[in-house]
Amino acid sequence: MTEHDLVPGAPVVGMVGAGQLARMTGQAAVSLGIGFRVLAAAPDESAALVFAGTQIGDYRCLDDLTAFASGCDVVTFDHEHVPGPHLRTLEQAGVSVRPGPDALGYAQDKRAMRERLAALGIACPRFAPAAGLDDVAGFAAGTGWPVVLKAVSGGYDGKGVWVCENPAQADEVLAHGLDLVVEEYVAFERELAVLVARSPSGQAAVYPVVETMQRDGICREVLAPAPGLSAATATAAQRLGLVIAAALGITGMLAVELFQTPAGLLVNELAMRPHNSGHWTIEGARTSQFEQHLRAVLDLPLGAPVLAAPHAVMVNVLGGDDPGLHSRLLHVMAADPGLRVHLYGKPVRPGRKVGHVTALGDDVGALRDRAWRAASYLSLGTELGDAVGARRG
Amino acid sequence: MTEHDLVPGAPVVGMVGAGQLARMTGQAAVSLGIGFRVLAAAPDESAALVFAGTQIGDYRCLDDLTAFASGCDVVTFDHEHVPGPHLRTLEQAGVSVRPGPDALGYAQDKRAMRERLAALGIACPRFAPAAGLDDVAGFAAGTGWPVVLKAVSGGYDGKGVWVCENPAQADEVLAHGLDLVVEEYVAFERELAVLVARSPSGQAAVYPVVETMQRDGICREVLAPAPGLSAATATAAQRLGLVIAAALGITGMLAVELFQTPAGLLVNELAMRPHNSGHWTIEGARTSQFEQHLRAVLDLPLGAPVLAAPHAVMVNVLGGDDPGLHSRLLHVMAADPGLRVHLYGKPVRPGRKVGHVTALGDDVGALRDRAWRAASYLSLGTELGDAVGARRG
Repeated sequence: MTEHDLVPGAPVVGMVGAGQLARMTGQAAVSLGIGFRVLAAAPDESAALVFAGTQIGDYRCLDDLTAFASGCDVVTFDHEHVPGPHLRTLEQAGVSVRPGPDALGYAQDKRAMRERLAALGIACPRFAPAAGLDDVAGFAAGTGWPVVLKAVSGGYDGKGVWVCENPAQADEVLAHGLDLVVEEYVAFERELAVLVARSPSGQAAVYPVVETMQRDGICREVLAPAPGLSAATATAAQRLGLVIAAALGITGMLAVELFQTPAGLLVNELAMRPHNSGHWTIEGARTSQFEQHLRAVLDLPLGAPVLAAPHAVMVNVLGGDDPGLHSRLLHVMAADPGLRVHLYGKPVRPGRKVGHVTALGDDVGALRDRAWRAASYLSLGTELGDAVGARRG
Repeated sequence: MTEHDLVPGAPVVGMVGAGQLARMTGQAAVSLGIGFRVLAAAPDESAALVFAGTQIGDYRCLDDLTAFASGCDVVTFDHEHVPGPHLRTLEQAGVSVRPGPDALGYAQDKRAMRERLAALGIACPRFAPAAGLDDVAGFAAGTGWPVVLKAVSGGYDGKGVWVCENPAQADEVLAHGLDLVVEEYVAFERELAVLVARSPSGQAAVYPVVETMQRDGICREVLAPAPGLSAATATAAQRLGLVIAAALGITGMLAVELFQTPAGLLVNELAMRPHNSGHWTIEGARTSQFEQHLRAVLDLPLGAPVLAAPHAVMVNVLGGDDPGLHSRLLHVMAADPGLRVHLYGKPVRPGRKVGHVTALGDDVGALRDRAWRAASYLSLGTELGDAVGARRG
């Protein structure tokens, strides 16, 4: 049906956005012989660099989206920033948009998400609209300081989230003039995440619950499965993921970020796409989250989300001061031949996610040390003597 | 250094040939952030369809090869058919050709390969030049009929190999006027294969020995590791692979096809590239043969060639009469969510390799049944009631 109709009858998936999530989704499409196109802002974006089916355009422009969709059987996303009205227009024109604009709205609007989850009876941090300092101060009178201010839309990787210790700090954030919500600051024991795939037919598959560690709002480490998690809590988390995916009508991957607290699980964030907390599934699960996303948006039967190794530890590689990733890659490969390395082809900038490493095996402590040593060395060009120190940063 | 210099300092590998081996090597290059280009005969070849770094040209044309090599740090191959004199010219011009023309000569010329292995004291089937029927009849007087006639160069997937039961059949083959060798027909117990990666520095890594099953000269099934193989025979096979790789100065992947006989192991064929007997390594080994080939030709430290599952069974998907692979894929996915499916984007023609499936787990018998059922269904649109019957075909 298009020049990228790779196998007779093979569908074509178009992904809006050409970052590393599109890059890794494209690799899965190559395996399945599925046509794959990306809508990239520039030809040097991570996925655009490597795949033939790249179209250059602006995801905020309806004409560009329409032209892109015309060559695809299904349109999906590697980020949540496409304007909802554009998606509705595409849907009305007969394009299969997955996830659809209704579902995606809950990933685009944190207030709508909180209200919807609350209506479903799902435990979340307490929250309130935050139009001004009175709202914030009134809210904090109930929860105590600090509180968390969040931009209702547009945030990612810690951008759009501010922990405020006092009214003066809140006032500084309010001065930006953004649409905000205020949330209680949750003193969690740890963060968990659960990944669910759901297809238009309603089939769903849920991955083992993982532990995640963020620093400065950026995911740094994922442990799969979450060490020491009780079966009851694991089942509760998986059930939360399945309930949310079904109630919100999500198609494709859903990531639910959770706080584990003494009082139980609270839902922190939702993402409706392959997610950093699932990169370990490339080698650590029988079906990767990227292949699963393709299967789900195409309404193909889902793959087994089971572990392919006893434990997997993923650590992100952040850019450091020296752009020479590849000269350092050699040393990492020599030091640890069993480590899996993924580099995204992105120019190195300090703090930017430029890759990840995954270690697989039996001993979580040893896997963490291996993954952190390699990631630190790739980032910094120095192997931190105490890899645990690097974690605690 | 080129437009496909994906990460600062990242090398660019150029692969001559754009079949499924290039396609799967390209996927590995994407993971490592390594630049990857293919020289394709046409834009609809398997790897050319999906990757951005495609150049169209003729591998028999020195100008095309030279132009292609100018954008690459290393040139390697997905087949053995590039003329040796062209490769020597490239090398003299400073191009890193890996494997080099001397090594590759032994994969291009079966007589030279047999003579070299014999000189190394490595057991092979008995062989002789076969210029005419007298040569063949004289040889058969020593070995008995049938004998095997092989084209000295240009063969693959059973093409260029003829089993002759009598002088009349040999005469028919001789009438083609090809340069031939005659070999004894080996009544083997089974066929084995061993994969070795070797780098220009001399580092080598050897994979577990696998059992292969061919029909009509085409690889149909691979069992990894080879069931019931004694440790002594496994070690002998791995040692053969390492010795041949070093003695012939091979860089990149080497596949050694072996006959297991009551009298020991005989070397059947050599291939100097990723090989069908190693497709199971994508999920079944910690480092796939495709990533390993890239590491080896780039002189990067090699990855661990260890098993990532107790057993892996790979079965090729051959084209059948109906081109509609993708409608059948749906049923295979529904029937077996844990199966790994790879489709190559090649137009379906009867008997042509269009994909493969891999099943991973504990019970070889169950894995074989799963893989054969899926491959048969993808090929034929019918699930053969007796999958073992399909194997025996």
